Amino acid sequence: MAGVPHYSVDLERGAAIEQYGPMGPKVDFWPHLSECSKARQPTPLKRMYNYSAIPGMISMAGGLPAPEYFPFDSISAEALKPEAFQTSVSGNSSSNGLFTWLRKLFGVSPETSHMEIPKYTSDPTDPSAFQLSVALQYGTSRGLLSLRTFVQAFTTSVFRPLNPETTTLLHVGNTDGWDKIAETLCNPGEFILTEEWTYPAAIIAAWPHHVRPFGIPMDGQGMRADSLEGILANWVPEDRGAPRPHVMYTIPIGQNPSGATMGVERKKAIYAVCVKYDVIIVEDDPYYFLQMSEYTPAALRPSSPSKAHLSEAEEQKEFIESLIPTYLKFDYQGRVVRLDTFSKTIAPGSRLGWFTCNPLFAERLERAQESTVQGPSGFSQALVGKLVVDHWKYSGYIRWLQGLRAQYTLRRDAIIDALAEAFDLEEEWTRDGGFAPLKGSVRVYIARSKCGSKQTLGSGEKKGKILFSFVPPTAGMFLWLKVHLYNHLAYSPDAPPPKSVEDTLENKLWVELVNHKVLFVPGWMFSSSPTLESATEQPLLDVSPSVHIDDRYKAISEGGKYGHFRTSYSTPSPAEIIRGDEAIRNRDGEKLP
Amino acid sequence: MAGVPHYSVDLERGAAIEQYGPMGPKVDFWPHLSECSKARQPTPLKRMYNYSAIPGMISMAGGLPAPEYFPFDSISAEALKPEAFQTSVSGNSSSNGLFTWLRKLFGVSPETSHMEIPKYTSDPTDPSAFQLSVALQYGTSRGLLSLRTFVQAFTTSVFRPLNPETTTLLHVGNTDGWDKIAETLCNPGEFILTEEWTYPAAIIAAWPHHVRPFGIPMDGQGMRADSLEGILANWVPEDRGAPRPHVMYTIPIGQNPSGATMGVERKKAIYAVCVKYDVIIVEDDPYYFLQMSEYTPAALRPSSPSKAHLSEAEEQKEFIESLIPTYLKFDYQGRVVRLDTFSKTIAPGSRLGWFTCNPLFAERLERAQESTVQGPSGFSQALVGKLVVDHWKYSGYIRWLQGLRAQYTLRRDAIIDALAEAFDLEEEWTRDGGFAPLKGSVRVYIARSKCGSKQTLGSGEKKGKILFSFVPPTAGMFLWLKVHLYNHLAYSPDAPPPKSVEDTLENKLWVELVNHKVLFVPGWMFSSSPTLESATEQPLLDVSPSVHIDDRYKAISEGGKYGHFRTSYSTPSPAEIIRGDEAIRNRDGEKLP
Repeated sequence: MAGVPHYSVDLERGAAIEQYGPMGPKVDFWPHLSECSKARQPTPLKRMYNYSAIPGMISMAGGLPAPEYFPFDSISAEALKPEAFQTSVSGNSSSNGLFTWLRKLFGVSPETSHMEIPKYTSDPTDPSAFQLSVALQYGTSRGLLSLRTFVQAFTTSVFRPLNPETTTLLHVGNTDGWDKIAETLCNPGEFILTEEWTYPAAIIAAWPHHVRPFGIPMDGQGMRADSLEGILANWVPEDRGAPRPHVMYTIPIGQNPSGATMGVERKKAIYAVCVKYDVIIVEDDPYYFLQMSEYTPAALRPSSPSKAHLSEAEEQKEFIESLIPTYLKFDYQGRVVRLDTFSKTIAPGSRLGWFTCNPLFAERLERAQESTVQGPSGFSQALVGKLVVDHWKYSGYIRWLQGLRAQYTLRRDAIIDALAEAFDLEEEWTRDGGFAPLKGSVRVYIARSKCGSKQTLGSGEKKGKILFSFVPPTAGMFLWLKVHLYNHLAYSPDAPPPKSVEDTLENKLWVELVNHKVLFVPGWMFSSSPTLESATEQPLLDVSPSVHIDDRYKAISEGGKYGHFRTSYSTPSPAEIIRGDEAIRNRDGEKLP
Repeated sequence: MAGVPHYSVDLERGAAIEQYGPMGPKVDFWPHLSECSKARQPTPLKRMYNYSAIPGMISMAGGLPAPEYFPFDSISAEALKPEAFQTSVSGNSSSNGLFTWLRKLFGVSPETSHMEIPKYTSDPTDPSAFQLSVALQYGTSRGLLSLRTFVQAFTTSVFRPLNPETTTLLHVGNTDGWDKIAETLCNPGEFILTEEWTYPAAIIAAWPHHVRPFGIPMDGQGMRADSLEGILANWVPEDRGAPRPHVMYTIPIGQNPSGATMGVERKKAIYAVCVKYDVIIVEDDPYYFLQMSEYTPAALRPSSPSKAHLSEAEEQKEFIESLIPTYLKFDYQGRVVRLDTFSKTIAPGSRLGWFTCNPLFAERLERAQESTVQGPSGFSQALVGKLVVDHWKYSGYIRWLQGLRAQYTLRRDAIIDALAEAFDLEEEWTRDGGFAPLKGSVRVYIARSKCGSKQTLGSGEKKGKILFSFVPPTAGMFLWLKVHLYNHLAYSPDAPPPKSVEDTLENKLWVELVNHKVLFVPGWMFSSSPTLESATEQPLLDVSPSVHIDDRYKAISEGGKYGHFRTSYSTPSPAEIIRGDEAIRNRDGEKLP
């Protein structure tokens, strides 16, 4: 990795501590706070909670309704057992998921167990009990004691943060969490470093505060460390109209939209660059536990999983160790703010997750929350908390995550199997196409139209046109199709540049798919630096001339030769995936019936 | 009301429509939007929901987990019945609430009924059904269809907004709702008009964005219309260092902290001023349904409620008509943004409420929510929604509110009864003491130490010193004690001005109460224009010289002669209230055992 200094950020906690002390070289993070965050004051009323907690205190301080007026006397739930889904899958994907889908088809209820949260437990003063009298009452924005204790212990145990001062704080979901971070760290006029393609809400939230994204080129592992170093090293504030960025927003695992997953060596390289240029890394990691093994073509997949005779505890240890380390694990300075969420592991509607970061940022984020959202919903905290803390417990939750990972593996396999059925897929390791993989580290599938029906390609046989290519995802929910538009009938190299996103060939193909009842998301929606506006709306994002967008847009689309679609395999059933694929297959110029 | 023009804002919709047309004189609210709000863009991904909803569409667009991976198969609750609490109370307060408190004491469960929310209802495509597959999934930030339909119908039916375009939007609680409004309407450097004493979170939220409160003098009905008019009429931007304020934050019913309730004539007068000076009224109204009749001394209270023979429907109609109209009811221009919450009527932990406002503001607020909180918790929406929409239904919820109102009346009576027991309470109607009541409209109680034990004061008998005074609240949870510090042993008119809030006599008395295990909230925490800082913290609020704070502080505290405590009767039981009162009684210089 030319130009990137290699700090010895060893994954082994002991070695790093020996080298740097428990905190590493002390870094002052105060200068990273925005003016807004520095001006945030504690809500004086929240101080009253400390006094209310004194035994025997008669509190006439809070505007708290008496719990006897909460109409909910108890809440209970039938919850799936942690072992609801198998931990490993094998062979043909359609048979593996069959049980779940059949169960749904025949209306058979899954096996569940009962959990209940009363208004008062037998000891109403027990601060660790889940009880509605507490969960549905006002409280500090830190949330329920048992849930936040669990979250802190889970974070320590699973992510093993290197910095011993690392602390956690509940939030109301990663989207609001990110908004609070951006407000806490960024002043108007600044740029945030993002992946070239990124989650639009992350941009949209910061935009009205005059904080703009600055996309860093990606490859099959996500953000490139060399590109990042190049941009930071050559940043001239006068030319850019903004100081050098000091905040990075990144989705390292199963990236949205590209599905790219960043390996540990890349993370270390990026971390080193961020140390060098004093950049705070915001690691938005909703898909972390949906990490999978590499895709194996159906024919090569073993028909039954290789069952090592491991105890459940050993299997869980193996599972956790199989996960790519988060930035926390080698963050010897405390410059990482991590966002975790229950949205993908329990349910999006929980609007519940947590920050993991240094104590200074945690305190400022708590201030930002207490005068706005106050804290996550008490119903969410009680139900998710009771489930994972008391009912499943730590090992049950890990077991649940293992089952989820296997289910998403099945789904990932189903969509690629279906593409392999419908197209000629060719594996390449060196091909660039905008996703220049590290040598040997990422592969790309090239999809061509089939020549003849269902025939296997022999040597010397004529190959079809390249239609699209993709990196088979190893985490998350997304398959990112790079569409080779130059092979489409409607493509013309001499066409005038499109005036709006509606005019691009990418968008026209997307509309055609919608008309065939298949909904993907067009790539332009994820661009960190769009140059084209929608004709039917206000400009999506106005463009600061200092970003040199035009050049970068040309690099991404290569002058209109490529387009992108984000497809998700998280919701549709395999049958729907196959119908979707048929629509894609017919998309190169032919009309579906 | 000298100086206040009387627009004919008739409560009768028909008359107003005749005069102004359905919308009144058309007002352009676009100029009221902040630069930040104008720059807010829709999240492009949310547009995908429109396409997903097309029948037969195979959506591979969203990063939505399949509902079979939500571990909650069903959620159920035992909920109190709407008639859990009587609609009217009478006689001695201690006997009325007895049932509830005894029930709790003996561990008897209240009568409840069962409600259940399955993952899939019998028709999983029914958009109006509460089902976890939908409620716990990502959705638009507008929330669940049935709940928002209910909220819109409830608002129309109960508040009867004059403006036919009035629209509602769910939010995650009034605190965040207000933060979103401040961001939507206020640019940095502006002032917001507030009550002189106000809810600190409302100030704290806007402060870091350089939006400062400008307190308007109050009397026993809350904000004064004549003071408001005077301030707006005489506003010189150059002197104030800011443009004339165009946003008002007000808590008109059971105001926090003063407990003041604003009558309809005052509201009309304030509305007229706001029309004249083009001010948006943000009506934060969490205590609206906790409106009570005037306090009647225990001895004069009828021993049984006068039961008119009304049907339940008639009684409900009477209840709704007894409530003071909200600003919506005569908002012929659409300049009111109302904040409602389930925090005080269901439970604070629901983190669920709604905006009611004109369509332009509603659209901008939706944009502000979708890239931050996204929307209220799905657990909250499902449980609160199922309860009020399907289980209790509209009339059941109204019945529940009637019961709550009666319970808070009991509690309000209990605290004043206890004060009357411990002190000599004298009723005055003209006395000023900082709360200059409108003639005949508000009364003030003056509390003196008792001379001799339990003797009724005869004429000519020596009266004790005035210790404190208060307006008996007719809504909400708060009793605001104005403490006549000049009668305290530790008061000295020649003492140097205090250097920090810790140094004030108000705060010293507060600490003494805490030491006696009674927790009130000291008044300084609610000041819209504090001049004193806490010595132990960063300055709470720095003071802009343009506000002429010193003069206004002197007017509030009258040079240290008065202090304030906010006491709440919402949580403590009557027994605790009495213990609390004993501590106050002993607070004038004597030590408790």
